[in-house]
Amino acid sequence: MRVLGIDCGSERTGYGVIESDGCEHRMLAAGVIRTSPRSPFEKRLLEIASALRSLIREQLPQAAAVEEVFYSANVKTALKLAHVRGIALLAIAEAGLEMAEYSPLEVKTSVVGYGRAEKSQVQMMVRSLLGTREAIESEDACDALAVAICHATHEATRRRLAFEERA
Amino acid sequence: MRVLGIDCGSERTGYGVIESDGCEHRMLAAGVIRTSPRSPFEKRLLEIASALRSLIREQLPQAAAVEEVFYSANVKTALKLAHVRGIALLAIAEAGLEMAEYSPLEVKTSVVGYGRAEKSQVQMMVRSLLGTREAIESEDACDALAVAICHATHEATRRRLAFEERA
Repeated sequence: MRVLGIDCGSERTGYGVIESDGCEHRMLAAGVIRTSPRSPFEKRLLEIASALRSLIREQLPQAAAVEEVFYSANVKTALKLAHVRGIALLAIAEAGLEMAEYSPLEVKTSVVGYGRAEKSQVQMMVRSLLGTREAIESEDACDALAVAICHATHEATRRRLAFEERA
Repeated sequence: MRVLGIDCGSERTGYGVIESDGCEHRMLAAGVIRTSPRSPFEKRLLEIASALRSLIREQLPQAAAVEEVFYSANVKTALKLAHVRGIALLAIAEAGLEMAEYSPLEVKTSVVGYGRAEKSQVQMMVRSLLGTREAIESEDACDALAVAICHATHEATRRRLAFEERA
């Protein structure tokens, strides 16, 4: 299956597209949508929407996965992020893709096998799982690939379980 | 000028369109976009986006005004609202409308003349300013009309000041 992962942020939104059978994953695209902090916020949302729509048109994923919003210290930052996340969910719904959400804990557990893994460990595992030696453009792209891998793995398990139940 | 006011919410998004010279206001449309809490959230965002786009196409406002997010007690509710607000700002930017944001305090001060006014006072003033005797469909539509009136009033003042400065 082809999965799009999105890591939302108002200045940088990471994305990653993988092809996966749940065990082997191959990276098809990864990068960051950057918007200028000097632009009005609504213009930045428009840029993010356009970029995500183009990406979906080009890469034709079947499913999309996004991290749940987590609001630790800064509510203001979380609220800005939620605006961008709204745009991402809209782009996913417009394209009629399957949508799944995972907590940061689920993503880390799925990718590293340990929910309290460090960011650097997640990145190392993402590169290793995708069999890519070159550094991935940025942390945001890497986080997006991580959530895509998490979904592909979960989805493969769900399908296997459904198959076993029917058998 | 023709102004669209939007009052964002994940279950009910109020809207109101007025024609105004800054002193006299006339209501052109008002209502509520309702989405089912049983639908997946991304589908509800899609419904809100479609409804706002149709409204803008039909009513052709020149400007749009939205309340700032305010996060009192419930962060989870504020985060949901921020997703919807992202969609509203996107629809505004897509249509190339002027955009303005006002705090609840600014809206109340502008409409009632008193920042700590009760909801019922705001509604009474909105009806009075629009010269409409019939009850407006809902609180959400009324709040949307209030932010539209607030913008029309502010914008007229800004234009007058700019004119005086040039004279």
